[in-house]
Amino acid sequence: MAVRIYREQVKTRGATEIVDITGLASGALRASGLKNGVLIVFVPGSTAAVTTIEFEPGAVRDLRAAMERLVPQSIPYEHDKRWGDGNGYSHVRSALLKPGLPIPFEDSSLLLGTWQQIVLADFDNRPRTREVVFQVIGE
Amino acid sequence: MAVRIYREQVKTRGATEIVDITGLASGALRASGLKNGVLIVFVPGSTAAVTTIEFEPGAVRDLRAAMERLVPQSIPYEHDKRWGDGNGYSHVRSALLKPGLPIPFEDSSLLLGTWQQIVLADFDNRPRTREVVFQVIGE
Amino acid sequence: MAVRIYREQVKTRGATEIVDITGLASGALRASGLKNGVLIVFVPGSTAAVTTIEFEPGAVRDLRAAMERLVPQSIPYEHDKRWGDGNGYSHVRSALLKPGLPIPFEDSSLLLGTWQQIVLADFDNRPRTREVVFQVIGE
Repeated sequence: MAVRIYREQVKTRGATEIVDITGLASGALRASGLKNGVLIVFVPGSTAAVTTIEFEPGAVRDLRAAMERLVPQSIPYEHDKRWGDGNGYSHVRSALLKPGLPIPFEDSSLLLGTWQQIVLADFDNRPRTREVVFQVIGE
Repeated sequence: MAVRIYREQVKTRGATEIVDITGLASGALRASGLKNGVLIVFVPGSTAAVTTIEFEPGAVRDLRAAMERLVPQSIPYEHDKRWGDGNGYSHVRSALLKPGLPIPFEDSSLLLGTWQQIVLADFDNRPRTREVVFQVIGE
Repeated sequence: MAVRIYREQVKTRGATEIVDITGLASGALRASGLKNGVLIVFVPGSTAAVTTIEFEPGAVRDLRAAMERLVPQSIPYEHDKRWGDGNGYSHVRSALLKPGLPIPFEDSSLLLGTWQQIVLADFDNRPRTREVVFQVIGE
């Protein structure tokens, strides 16, 4: 058993942009040379999150619309009253969707569904360069 | 430290059916023979998810009702306009609840609460046979 | 590679109190003596959950308000009709936010963002003493 960590920079426009990071995840797994184990995808920061979705423009727009319905940008947030940075909604969306996800792999392949991609959701209200952590644990 | 993978087929009716898979998880742990470590429960696919709940009919109905309130089947989805399969809401529910969960175990027992069961939520709009991955990592 | 488990008691007032448990997580990591690996944070029980947030009073109040909007305490729950304990909403909030989170660490430090804290959300409708599990897997 071994542990390997890879970091990748991902530029986003913020504003709940949803970015397909499956290729980066697969690249980290390949670089590790490990065959069986788990990949932890984790985004440090309190205004982003990680999940999976069928990465086609319709479903992506639907997820963005759902986040806007569930945690609207237009209502007042206490965070904004205190800090004035206008991204209170970003913090709540991030806490709701959470920053980490474990994905098993076997025979050097992630056990994702055919139409299932790993995505970074950047909820901040401005463009960001995110560092995403891909940790490979296995043998 | 060792890694073992078990796959189980779970038949569902779709339509946000919530299925107790705690027994399958415990079976995988037992089969592994490992004593201390983590069990990764993961469902490949973009219209299902994994979480825990007290698996009694009331709480299960409440969770289904909440998903219907939060991500209604009745509103239009861009995914459906493009693909016509009518399960746009299923994709959003799955991305929101997420496909994976890590559960620690010790002395060959999952560290769940007494009233806490592991569940598969199948959000697709038709019956499915799901393959659920139980990955046991430990010693 | 090794596995270590630490349990910490956390007293809460329930009622969606959100408690910063980052210090407990760091303490477990330090106690383990492990340098590289993953920390699994997990709360046994079906009325609590674990996530991350910028732990300042504004964002915390915003998250509590969001949970009240998304899964209101004021609407009827089937769980309550059957069991009469009035915490049906707590079960749904817990299932939605989920009880576990994997957090990578490197050089003995959790890879959290600067403003990102690990929190326990206690959704039960009464004060509780929660046992939180911090499992350290690594080398």
